[in-house]
Amino acid sequence: MSKEPPNNSREKTKNLLLKLQDNICKNLENIDGKAKFTEESWLREEGGGGRSRVLKNGSIFEQAGVNFSEVYGKELPQSIISQRPEAKGHEWFATGTSMVLHPKNPFIPTVHLNYRYFEAGPVWWFGGGADLTPYYPYLSDVRHFHKEHSNACEKVNKKLHLVFKPWCDEYFFLKHRNESRGIGGIFYDYQDGSGNIYKGSNKDGNAYKESNNIGELNLNWNNLFALAENCGEAFLSSYQPIIEKRVSQNYTKEEREFQLYRRGRYVEFNLVWDRGTIFGLQTNGRTESILMSLPPLARWEYGYKAKQGSREDLLTKIFTRPQDWQNDKVLEEFCLENNIFD
Amino acid sequence: MSKEPPNNSREKTKNLLLKLQDNICKNLENIDGKAKFTEESWLREEGGGGRSRVLKNGSIFEQAGVNFSEVYGKELPQSIISQRPEAKGHEWFATGTSMVLHPKNPFIPTVHLNYRYFEAGPVWWFGGGADLTPYYPYLSDVRHFHKEHSNACEKVNKKLHLVFKPWCDEYFFLKHRNESRGIGGIFYDYQDGSGNIYKGSNKDGNAYKESNNIGELNLNWNNLFALAENCGEAFLSSYQPIIEKRVSQNYTKEEREFQLYRRGRYVEFNLVWDRGTIFGLQTNGRTESILMSLPPLARWEYGYKAKQGSREDLLTKIFTRPQDWQNDKVLEEFCLENNIFD
Repeated sequence: MSKEPPNNSREKTKNLLLKLQDNICKNLENIDGKAKFTEESWLREEGGGGRSRVLKNGSIFEQAGVNFSEVYGKELPQSIISQRPEAKGHEWFATGTSMVLHPKNPFIPTVHLNYRYFEAGPVWWFGGGADLTPYYPYLSDVRHFHKEHSNACEKVNKKLHLVFKPWCDEYFFLKHRNESRGIGGIFYDYQDGSGNIYKGSNKDGNAYKESNNIGELNLNWNNLFALAENCGEAFLSSYQPIIEKRVSQNYTKEEREFQLYRRGRYVEFNLVWDRGTIFGLQTNGRTESILMSLPPLARWEYGYKAKQGSREDLLTKIFTRPQDWQNDKVLEEFCLENNIFD
Repeated sequence: MSKEPPNNSREKTKNLLLKLQDNICKNLENIDGKAKFTEESWLREEGGGGRSRVLKNGSIFEQAGVNFSEVYGKELPQSIISQRPEAKGHEWFATGTSMVLHPKNPFIPTVHLNYRYFEAGPVWWFGGGADLTPYYPYLSDVRHFHKEHSNACEKVNKKLHLVFKPWCDEYFFLKHRNESRGIGGIFYDYQDGSGNIYKGSNKDGNAYKESNNIGELNLNWNNLFALAENCGEAFLSSYQPIIEKRVSQNYTKEEREFQLYRRGRYVEFNLVWDRGTIFGLQTNGRTESILMSLPPLARWEYGYKAKQGSREDLLTKIFTRPQDWQNDKVLEEFCLENNIFD
């Protein structure tokens, strides 16, 4: 089996990602039970377009946005060509499905997912991932989310998750706050089967180190297609049980306020650090679709500090730091003792 | 009189900007009548520090942040050296006062002010400005704000305002929304008396054109010091009458919602486009002070469109576009006819 894309690579990935959007939306409507998605299709002047779906004011989701797009053009922006000079002079194609869910109940985490595929001449790659941003700390929820995604990766190769987990911690990081956006998940980019799997630029990080230890995995196009498929499918089983567990927990005005405050961090990450968002906004992308990731309501408060030892404090100090959620026994003990295990 | 800074340039500018912070805070407390500023002083590891003041939950101001800082160091970041190579190898000094007010009542605009001074070896410059972001359109308020600032500039030189007004429109622009942040005001940077006064990079803009027509003004250090002083002093007279005029206007839940929605744009500008904010966040500035500019509460809504002809619609279509507020008779007629003049 060739390492290279099949002839119908664009159609295959497009259909995979359309199906993913459909499947997620259908299930989210069922889970919500009240609100429905509305859809807007849009065309991009330079080529291609998309299908943006948003659900507002649901019984569970304050806002859910699920975007599909398929865009193409004759010449890539200079910023991409300087990264991958082989792509120069070729027409290009990019397709992706991305999703951000902002639940109303502060005990249900915000979640993000994005799977994408890119081609330009001889250059092609897969990218994607999913990450969870809790407002209140529950180790069991975090473990469940990670477990489902690690299973999905391991179906393709046992080693992948060892790199994609720290890569996620590295990517979703607010340097100006010295905080992770949440408890992570998986993240990968520029996957074309060549070389080591970590393609980021931080040679001091764990993703680089793990990837270096592992060496080349020689995945082919079909493996990477299956990876996107598995991980995309894993989303619902990783998240739905958390909703079901938390949705009936009543919350106070103060807990809601803390959620809105932490949502401010979500805004900060997306607008200051998220490469996809910034690139989209600066290069004439469809603003409303790109910024669908922002929360419907967010709060800032100068100098806010959670009360020492409170759940808000534990969220900030423990659940916005990269951790070995699955295996760290000290962390497990701590969470059990502090009633933030389950 | 020399064009160059006096021996006590750092002390003079620092004292000017400290006094500006004091004066503004004292007056804002009087205006608010309910809440008081709290102050935090902070030190910067590499040299210098600041004095951050914030007033929360006032009767008029939902949040008011006024920062003073004075920082220095041995070696400038590469990004500044590449702009001004003469500064290389010199120790540097920067001082500034900045302010953002977020009133509760949607009929009172948000306002921003910043005056600053920089020195490194032979290089020195003044920068600053003030701009207004209304949520509901009133041409008379806009004219008043502009008039006070144009008077302040004209005390130093009749020509300055012709450049600083379009420069402000150019700087406070959300490219991804094709909107101005508000109705503008004045903006200037890199003012050292040399060459033409416009120092931005957009050669197609009105600021460049006006500046080119005017030619060199040969302002000296004292002129530019006086400019900062005049403009800083103009702030209260430019803004206080607007508060007094609008504060007793009752507002509906819908008007408050529109204000929160438009505040989302304020967040977008500050985090995506504002050079000062981004530079500060990426270079280890004091995050809480930098992000004091963000509103206490903001809203996003996918696909929002104001009802055709509503005040929300007129705000969006007319008051987020650069306009010749003072002289455009067609605009004046339109505002009178649509009850958005006063």
